[in-house]
Amino acid sequence: MASHFADRLCDAVKTKKTSLVVGLDPVYTRLPLVIRSHREMNDEFDAAAAVDAIFDFCTQTMRIIAPMIPALKINIAFFEKYLWEGLETYYSLITEADDLGLEVIGDVKRGDIGHTAELYAAAHLENPELAGLEDTLAPDAITINGYMGTDGIEPFAQMADKQGKGLFVLVRTSNPSAAAVQDFADAEGVKMYEKLADIVAEIAGKSERIGKSGYSNIGMVVAGTAPRATTALREKYDNIWFLVPGYGSQGASAADCVRFCKPDGTGALINASRSIIYAYEKPQYKAQFGDDWKRCIEQAVIDAKVDLANAMQTLL
Amino acid sequence: MASHFADRLCDAVKTKKTSLVVGLDPVYTRLPLVIRSHREMNDEFDAAAAVDAIFDFCTQTMRIIAPMIPALKINIAFFEKYLWEGLETYYSLITEADDLGLEVIGDVKRGDIGHTAELYAAAHLENPELAGLEDTLAPDAITINGYMGTDGIEPFAQMADKQGKGLFVLVRTSNPSAAAVQDFADAEGVKMYEKLADIVAEIAGKSERIGKSGYSNIGMVVAGTAPRATTALREKYDNIWFLVPGYGSQGASAADCVRFCKPDGTGALINASRSIIYAYEKPQYKAQFGDDWKRCIEQAVIDAKVDLANAMQTLL
Repeated sequence: MASHFADRLCDAVKTKKTSLVVGLDPVYTRLPLVIRSHREMNDEFDAAAAVDAIFDFCTQTMRIIAPMIPALKINIAFFEKYLWEGLETYYSLITEADDLGLEVIGDVKRGDIGHTAELYAAAHLENPELAGLEDTLAPDAITINGYMGTDGIEPFAQMADKQGKGLFVLVRTSNPSAAAVQDFADAEGVKMYEKLADIVAEIAGKSERIGKSGYSNIGMVVAGTAPRATTALREKYDNIWFLVPGYGSQGASAADCVRFCKPDGTGALINASRSIIYAYEKPQYKAQFGDDWKRCIEQAVIDAKVDLANAMQTLL
Repeated sequence: MASHFADRLCDAVKTKKTSLVVGLDPVYTRLPLVIRSHREMNDEFDAAAAVDAIFDFCTQTMRIIAPMIPALKINIAFFEKYLWEGLETYYSLITEADDLGLEVIGDVKRGDIGHTAELYAAAHLENPELAGLEDTLAPDAITINGYMGTDGIEPFAQMADKQGKGLFVLVRTSNPSAAAVQDFADAEGVKMYEKLADIVAEIAGKSERIGKSGYSNIGMVVAGTAPRATTALREKYDNIWFLVPGYGSQGASAADCVRFCKPDGTGALINASRSIIYAYEKPQYKAQFGDDWKRCIEQAVIDAKVDLANAMQTLL
């Protein structure tokens, strides 16, 4: 296994022949009935039962999708809802995903400065060497918030370097009100997110951070929902991996998203969460596969991969 | 107890006659030797021993300082380092602080949009009603990151409203590199943090969010280290509570910080963390109180209160 995160991503994308990443956003009440009706998991108001059901769903889902995708994104908020019970489950899933050969992105959006940032980085990027936690793995990369500038990014970047891991710094998000902050522009028309992208690119571009693949281990989160403006970042920063949310349920098309990839398919991870993991709720899959929720998820991954591949073909 | 967070803060500041807030940033290796040398807590590389020591230190510290201060800030990063073991300790400390009559601010700096933001809000502001977690309390208020704009703030604000709790949205931080992002200015010279403050003020100013005290339950984090520019926010937003970091170890003076208070002392919480909780490391207190670490912390709180009161006197 390549020891540089960006090189591992390149290998994984080339091996699995897709830039599709699946995001785990598990909500108890949307889990397949067969899991929720299990004797020990049938109480959404019991923390242990709920996290057991979520763990069961996520591990089964991962086993189906792992052979088909390069990486998995796990959204920690869906686990924090169950406090420490949920957090233990989050870390357990990282170990499971690692066993399945997936690159794991912890979608944690932490952000702070100085010593506090170092501690967040330890929690979320360092495989702990503490007795009682020694079998635990931290993710291969995490998302962070860069509003505090370089001081708020470097401590995370340094931990990522040390651990052979990576970061994705939020630059432009997919929500409607993002523009009011992130598109705030200076006298020359430079937008806040472009300025922040420059700051991230400077951190990312340090020579020791560039892998054999030519990419940095420090990347950016840029939404697929505003593609015309944001794909300019692809042109501008040759060595950046983009994590692109918004494909699927959030409304970005495959054509919007693949613009962040280079012609060889590397350079962007395109994330779909709900449109994949809740595929069994969709009439089109239900009609085909009935109650076989795993088959629905499998087909949704296949369909998304084809959709992205076709869009890529059109682009080239 | 007033049911509106801002009203509770006003009552607490008036009762305790200070705007001083103490921040708990506990690091195992800096804990008093008497705690670290305890038979069951003398191993910094054992997660359970380390969190037990931290819990012991924090509860003893809280008992000393609770009668003297209105509120306590707990920095979750120092607990996340110990993963789920640490998170359980974090929530246990909130219950202890609540029992001592303190308003508790969870310094969690979360930030996301939509459903994810709702889940973070549930984890960090809602007292859980889940079996297995039902005796757990969430803090009275949390810090959040507002880079995603209104969509990233409203879900937290709505949970705060529902629970009689509050928020402090990061507006201007104290670190050297904050300026490159937060002072990014438009053609009229309006800075990013001023624009974000306007967005927060609009959310905060909704009539249902204003308590009897005239303050909103939605506040801002503005560093005491850049006082000339930032105290303009005090003039501009009459109904905002500011959480002001930077006093003490980070170099902001009492005079810098009290400018965020109104003449009656309300309107700002001035936070000191390391300068208080590690007072027993300082020669001045060691010389006076020897190994009595609790007496050192007590005196540091008294001294900080006097320092702030004198600065306030000078200002009026």
